[in-house]
Amino acid sequence: MNIPFKGIIAYPITPFTEQDKVDIPLFKTLVERLVAAGAHGIAPLGSTGVLPYLTDEEKEAVTEATIQQVAGRAPILAGVSNLTTERTIYHARFAEKAGADAVMIIPISYWKLTDEEIFRHYEAVANAVSIPIMAYNNPATGGVDMSPALLKRLLQIPNVTMIKESTGDVQRMHYLRRELGEEVAFYNGSNPLALAAFSAGANGWCTAATNLIPELNLELYSAISENNYELAREVFYKQLRLLQFIVNKGLPRAIQAGLKLAGVEAGYPRLPLKPLTAEETGQLQALLQECLQ
Amino acid sequence: MNIPFKGIIAYPITPFTEQDKVDIPLFKTLVERLVAAGAHGIAPLGSTGVLPYLTDEEKEAVTEATIQQVAGRAPILAGVSNLTTERTIYHARFAEKAGADAVMIIPISYWKLTDEEIFRHYEAVANAVSIPIMAYNNPATGGVDMSPALLKRLLQIPNVTMIKESTGDVQRMHYLRRELGEEVAFYNGSNPLALAAFSAGANGWCTAATNLIPELNLELYSAISENNYELAREVFYKQLRLLQFIVNKGLPRAIQAGLKLAGVEAGYPRLPLKPLTAEETGQLQALLQECLQ
Amino acid sequence: MNIPFKGIIAYPITPFTEQDKVDIPLFKTLVERLVAAGAHGIAPLGSTGVLPYLTDEEKEAVTEATIQQVAGRAPILAGVSNLTTERTIYHARFAEKAGADAVMIIPISYWKLTDEEIFRHYEAVANAVSIPIMAYNNPATGGVDMSPALLKRLLQIPNVTMIKESTGDVQRMHYLRRELGEEVAFYNGSNPLALAAFSAGANGWCTAATNLIPELNLELYSAISENNYELAREVFYKQLRLLQFIVNKGLPRAIQAGLKLAGVEAGYPRLPLKPLTAEETGQLQALLQECLQ
Amino acid sequence: MNIPFKGIIAYPITPFTEQDKVDIPLFKTLVERLVAAGAHGIAPLGSTGVLPYLTDEEKEAVTEATIQQVAGRAPILAGVSNLTTERTIYHARFAEKAGADAVMIIPISYWKLTDEEIFRHYEAVANAVSIPIMAYNNPATGGVDMSPALLKRLLQIPNVTMIKESTGDVQRMHYLRRELGEEVAFYNGSNPLALAAFSAGANGWCTAATNLIPELNLELYSAISENNYELAREVFYKQLRLLQFIVNKGLPRAIQAGLKLAGVEAGYPRLPLKPLTAEETGQLQALLQECLQ
Repeated sequence: MNIPFKGIIAYPITPFTEQDKVDIPLFKTLVERLVAAGAHGIAPLGSTGVLPYLTDEEKEAVTEATIQQVAGRAPILAGVSNLTTERTIYHARFAEKAGADAVMIIPISYWKLTDEEIFRHYEAVANAVSIPIMAYNNPATGGVDMSPALLKRLLQIPNVTMIKESTGDVQRMHYLRRELGEEVAFYNGSNPLALAAFSAGANGWCTAATNLIPELNLELYSAISENNYELAREVFYKQLRLLQFIVNKGLPRAIQAGLKLAGVEAGYPRLPLKPLTAEETGQLQALLQECLQ
Repeated sequence: MNIPFKGIIAYPITPFTEQDKVDIPLFKTLVERLVAAGAHGIAPLGSTGVLPYLTDEEKEAVTEATIQQVAGRAPILAGVSNLTTERTIYHARFAEKAGADAVMIIPISYWKLTDEEIFRHYEAVANAVSIPIMAYNNPATGGVDMSPALLKRLLQIPNVTMIKESTGDVQRMHYLRRELGEEVAFYNGSNPLALAAFSAGANGWCTAATNLIPELNLELYSAISENNYELAREVFYKQLRLLQFIVNKGLPRAIQAGLKLAGVEAGYPRLPLKPLTAEETGQLQALLQECLQ
Repeated sequence: MNIPFKGIIAYPITPFTEQDKVDIPLFKTLVERLVAAGAHGIAPLGSTGVLPYLTDEEKEAVTEATIQQVAGRAPILAGVSNLTTERTIYHARFAEKAGADAVMIIPISYWKLTDEEIFRHYEAVANAVSIPIMAYNNPATGGVDMSPALLKRLLQIPNVTMIKESTGDVQRMHYLRRELGEEVAFYNGSNPLALAAFSAGANGWCTAATNLIPELNLELYSAISENNYELAREVFYKQLRLLQFIVNKGLPRAIQAGLKLAGVEAGYPRLPLKPLTAEETGQLQALLQECLQ
Repeated sequence: MNIPFKGIIAYPITPFTEQDKVDIPLFKTLVERLVAAGAHGIAPLGSTGVLPYLTDEEKEAVTEATIQQVAGRAPILAGVSNLTTERTIYHARFAEKAGADAVMIIPISYWKLTDEEIFRHYEAVANAVSIPIMAYNNPATGGVDMSPALLKRLLQIPNVTMIKESTGDVQRMHYLRRELGEEVAFYNGSNPLALAAFSAGANGWCTAATNLIPELNLELYSAISENNYELAREVFYKQLRLLQFIVNKGLPRAIQAGLKLAGVEAGYPRLPLKPLTAEETGQLQALLQECLQ
């Protein structure tokens, strides 16, 4: 099975110009920071990258810019989720042709989808591309909560080889591992669950925190890889408050604010999303300093 | 204050051809049925009309087709909701120019919006058009639950003059009425709450059921208008099971199936949405017959 | 079928002395107020009467005191709920022998009960007494949420003739009425739902508010009885904020504070329950004045 | 600080005779099995021991029987929870005098308690005894969900030295550890969370599973103590399905059935609780065999 990811998979934000255009040059410098920091994978057009707020053309430009900039130094997981099956297939094909190593798909909901509709949606995309697919469960953003049983069923589709779980409930991961055995490739997308997910056997951690605290993210994975949970616990608790903060405030808002605090240009958000308030930015600054002690 | 709606506001589905194109001629015949049945308002591009699954061009075509077909026989409430503020403004302006009487806006969420972001979103659209706006709360589809306090605040924006509540919790309506007095214009969007909402003082009922059982919908409103709640109760309980069914199965799926059962052409859904199963269609048929007894 | 209640069924509090004993003489004066005000039924040992916090002897004394004081002027609904089936039967028999017209039973949960366990619990009590039973659903206090389907099943037990629904979801009442027809006797126990429940067809309203605002409670029922929903709505909105307040603060705490504000002696609560704070008491005073305008 | 527990704290069931009396001789043999198996602590009168279903006299007999039987071979944590503060103090004093090492208290709710009421409840009991108190949070049984901030506050009471968390949300434990440092003594009461809780730094695991699979429980703790999470994970996944089953079916029911399957006498449950059905017992047998492979 083709499972190109493990460890720390980093999610860049999508920055905008003051005129509300995607700022591709700035995006490339943000991707370069993640690669240079040692991220084990790069995932453009995730929730952090505000995928659903972009036009088709903008999505294509972001995918191409990532592949150019990374230039083979890390595997690339491109987000291609869309409300309609037709558009999801379109973007998955584009990503494959552009050179992505895998695509990530969350079944975005307006009308609640039946399990059968979700299964056929993944199947239709899987039939249209050859690269592996990561099925992504995140009811808090996508509005659909795929049951562990449905995720298990999705893994029967040949190139659906990876699951990303972001419900924040470690028992979902327990189920997958217990039902599917040690070989199942599951990833944690809930930042405050990083330690629990690794102890449950997760292959990797999908996180936007690497934009702000790459060393702490990588140290955690390193301790886990060495089966040293005392060290892992220490490193985890050091970064926990920051992880909770960026989740609570919304990743695109919080990462952008954190980059600016670190002196890194990060552009503008797209309305209706707004920057953190001054008070929130102050809280973030305190948490970042706490992480560095 | 400009409040162009009361009574039964009917929501047409958006039908597709087998080739996944919006079928405008068929859409017009479906709108005509609603007008001919006596609906007090017509609301294209609602949730029932699968607004978020359409391209910009498709949305414009649907709005224009509605206005042409209705030709002033009923007021028109055009859905213009979008993830971004920029696109929401664009479609609101289009609807106003095309001749809609009001626009309906639900704050579609991917990233959870703060109350301030939602308020600024509505304000920005309100500043860009002159026609009234109906603020629409439906966490089950839009993913955002606007508190009664936020809805109250939205009503301070001059042309936000109407609220549509679809949480299914009648106490939300009680709050609005208690806080804002008898003049507040609120509408019920939760079908099984039709009776409770009218007893709480709702101005109208936004419903897709009118595609299938227009007489029962209109009889309920008529009894309410005459302050005859014994009759209203009787008429309500007659249609309740059908109302629950179409909500549980998803309005676009259920209405399409119901139209076909009634011998009315209704086109195809757009993937990933699929038609009702044969078993579900059988249940719907039994419920429709029950309504007609 | 034996259905001894309709209209406003009033719930007295159980007052304690400063030494934490049940104050039976004071309790009798509180019951007298309810009867004198015109309540259509009296329900001692409800949630308002802090049933689960009393010893067996205290419960018996409260039941007997009610029957003595009411002396046939209104039907009596005695609470006899208990965690164990054996104690529930014991108290139901006591209430029957003492002269209660019916008993109310909520399946108090520590361990979640299966539907079968709940059914057998009611059946065992029903077999042990001849007076009718009101099955009471209130997950917020009892910890068990009986589904509408289970409530329907309970009504098959011959002397389970009444349902009290306190979930605050009017659709539970819709279900019962739709499934069981006009003859089903259901009562509303969620104060802010009083209007919606009557419009759905409820036989009565079980409320502690009658301790504080008997006229408004009775006026609402009177308007309903005359099928005058415009008046009912007006009277309902007048008392709504008070109803919400007493529910939010806990009925025993709020009623006790309200009685004191009205110059009525009301005793002490039993720890861990404490009186309202001074700030809360001030809010209550404002709401009571609002009701009287 | 007095923290007498770590590791595997085992919860015996309370068996009844066919005549619904507590079977003290049988209870002693069940306690003996737990001590003999090597449990690091014994906790009578927990949820598993159906504390709230017992009379005062029965509780006292169970506490005394435990202390006699254990005879100093393991520390004893006696459950003394009660709806009223007065009865909680009474039983805490009884347990202290009888020789328990600590008492466990869950704030059982009928009326939702305010944080202040809960704090004063614990404080009153703490002032009445000298032995340490474990504050127990389990909204699924007790009906009160104590926030992490309230639990932190409770730890300021001198002899409230331990927290047992049973919400099943590992992030509650993260909060306690992050806010209170490495010294905080917290225990996991949610069986399927055993691995995640230990990785978060839990001092121990409060479990009824030791009645059925003591070796697997103890092996998990042993691997954790040696910082060997690969082994811990393997042992955890071996017992996970059984842990989920006993939680889903209710611990008293499931443990009793499991004991009988193992050929151990286990008495009768107290109504309304009933034994597992034959089908459920068959499922349990399969899971027990799976554990032993």
